[in-house]
Amino acid sequence: MPYLLTPGPLTTSRGVKLAMLADWGSWDQELREVTADIRRRLLKIAGADHHECVLLQGAGSYGIEAALGSFTPAARHKTLLVINGAYGDRAVKMMTRLNRPFSVIDKGDSAKPLAAEVEKAIAADATITTVFVVHCETTSGLVNPIEEIAAVVKAKNKVFILDAMSSFGALAIDMAKLSVDVLISSANKCIEGVPGFCYVIAGRELLKASEGKSHSLALDLFDQWAYMEKTGQFRYTPPTHALVAFHQALKEHEMAGGAPGRLQRYEKNRLVLLKGMRELGFATLLPESEMGPIIQTFLTPADPAFEFQRFYDALKERGFVIYPGKITKRSSFRIGTIGQVDENVMRALLVAIREALKEMGVKNTAPAEAKE
Amino acid sequence: MPYLLTPGPLTTSRGVKLAMLADWGSWDQELREVTADIRRRLLKIAGADHHECVLLQGAGSYGIEAALGSFTPAARHKTLLVINGAYGDRAVKMMTRLNRPFSVIDKGDSAKPLAAEVEKAIAADATITTVFVVHCETTSGLVNPIEEIAAVVKAKNKVFILDAMSSFGALAIDMAKLSVDVLISSANKCIEGVPGFCYVIAGRELLKASEGKSHSLALDLFDQWAYMEKTGQFRYTPPTHALVAFHQALKEHEMAGGAPGRLQRYEKNRLVLLKGMRELGFATLLPESEMGPIIQTFLTPADPAFEFQRFYDALKERGFVIYPGKITKRSSFRIGTIGQVDENVMRALLVAIREALKEMGVKNTAPAEAKE
Repeated sequence: MPYLLTPGPLTTSRGVKLAMLADWGSWDQELREVTADIRRRLLKIAGADHHECVLLQGAGSYGIEAALGSFTPAARHKTLLVINGAYGDRAVKMMTRLNRPFSVIDKGDSAKPLAAEVEKAIAADATITTVFVVHCETTSGLVNPIEEIAAVVKAKNKVFILDAMSSFGALAIDMAKLSVDVLISSANKCIEGVPGFCYVIAGRELLKASEGKSHSLALDLFDQWAYMEKTGQFRYTPPTHALVAFHQALKEHEMAGGAPGRLQRYEKNRLVLLKGMRELGFATLLPESEMGPIIQTFLTPADPAFEFQRFYDALKERGFVIYPGKITKRSSFRIGTIGQVDENVMRALLVAIREALKEMGVKNTAPAEAKE
Repeated sequence: MPYLLTPGPLTTSRGVKLAMLADWGSWDQELREVTADIRRRLLKIAGADHHECVLLQGAGSYGIEAALGSFTPAARHKTLLVINGAYGDRAVKMMTRLNRPFSVIDKGDSAKPLAAEVEKAIAADATITTVFVVHCETTSGLVNPIEEIAAVVKAKNKVFILDAMSSFGALAIDMAKLSVDVLISSANKCIEGVPGFCYVIAGRELLKASEGKSHSLALDLFDQWAYMEKTGQFRYTPPTHALVAFHQALKEHEMAGGAPGRLQRYEKNRLVLLKGMRELGFATLLPESEMGPIIQTFLTPADPAFEFQRFYDALKERGFVIYPGKITKRSSFRIGTIGQVDENVMRALLVAIREALKEMGVKNTAPAEAKE
């Protein structure tokens, strides 16, 4: 099977996949211990102190909706959504569906929000009690300045909800130090498990106060947490194979040096990829200083010989799955630098890209001008 | 690893587990083809004609909440919940959370609802437009008479929502013939896949009319369906490994004779288990004529030497995981007869049970009298 160079699902280790070769009972003590250990390990990675970890079946976006449903005010007060890409837009769509009051700072899909902008928005509207930010927007690959934003949110004593879907486990996040109240991530991102569930790490008091607030029973984080605390089990059938795979992934994460170790590998992937792509003449959406280690967005060459699907297929044939672009203003494609891949994989990818371009007859990899 | 004799997750085949040894890209054409083939095969098993199949990440109960949120009236009209166990109770809890109008026929946890009762309830309240029934209540193991109930619901021209979680793929269900409008089941039940997603098979017109009705974005079946139709993909990251495992499970299901073949094996399991347990002196909660082939409830022996946890552990040591009871009025335990197990496994289990009883010093397996 090819390497997955996407925002997830990712390439996982052999050990993670082998962990799925057994069937586990959901009521059994062994699975309860796996579940408890997963929760403990996640709290540790998050630098949590007064927080609880709730595991929730489903995709990462379920965790976002669950957190918004449990921790944003339903009336009178407001949530500030600081957005710059598709995942921010999805949060807006969820808040609209949930009929929760919100205001928005929208930076388009390739600009960073500034802490000063957040500060100004909070100062201008006293009804804002909660701030939602996406850590790494995989739409572009941008990593948002959450330390600066967190400082502002903390100074104003607001609830801070961080969508750390694609960053948690690689980029440093210290929930206690930054006063992050709620963090959401998923099994199939930088911890390098398989998809099947997500997790929400939330302040204990905030979580306790959320009883009955969720619009949904399935996505009710308080209910899920209270049951898990009482029984050690999920309320509904857990994705047992994904759980034991994730447990293995967490052990491998620790052995490989935790988040700093992972970041180092991903950074190396990014550097090798960017250098090679620049040598091939590709242009990036973002300036190098703004590109995170998670996923890289390249502008589509203007050369009419370049067709994304042909490029994709040629790379897949050679063992690499890349990802289409998602930004709205310019044609682009993305290459993930996360998952169980290292700089050697990146070098092999660069050889494959060179071959694919030759095969397609692409002479010039310079991008088209930006559309207005 | 032990055999799982529970209501799920179940023991899966080697082929199903081996299918998880690869990582699949969620955008890739190959996974889109797997997804499309899963949907086609499910519609065929369901005897669907004017229906659509929506796959949804998460546990089976997510599918129930999604279906209730999408297909029950939000005001003026009412849903009749016909319940007899924990899964019916959960539907009540969901409807309460969703603030949807409903009335209830509650038969406790070991009695069947009669079609005549449903007919009477519908006749007595013209605001009832929708009827919800659980096919097999794993609380007791009862299989409800859905053919008779469906006939009444059809005659009255109401929407029929069937929770076929633990029956689909084994018990015969012909959605077209019975006029079932909505059917919900899960990957890790009688198709014998691993947990990670569920599916809702719904009448096309009903589904189209549900646009914007869901209380949730993540659980919005119309939105999930429309996106899947347009792109061949899930809206949010799919549980890729669970999907390819399920695809393999569906192929094995077909090769083993489809639902009739599966039912035959499960029936045999049930017969061998019941005969052996009767010989050991155990009593069942239900009379034999009411016991379905999915899961069997046995009454806890009155003998104080019998402790469920010790019994459970002794069986687990010997390679069998059973399940605690869930009925409220009498102490009981359950043994599932579904999953990748056959009559030989049941015979081996009976040997293990005999040994466990001896080890515990249980002399008398007759149950305590029913509590009032």
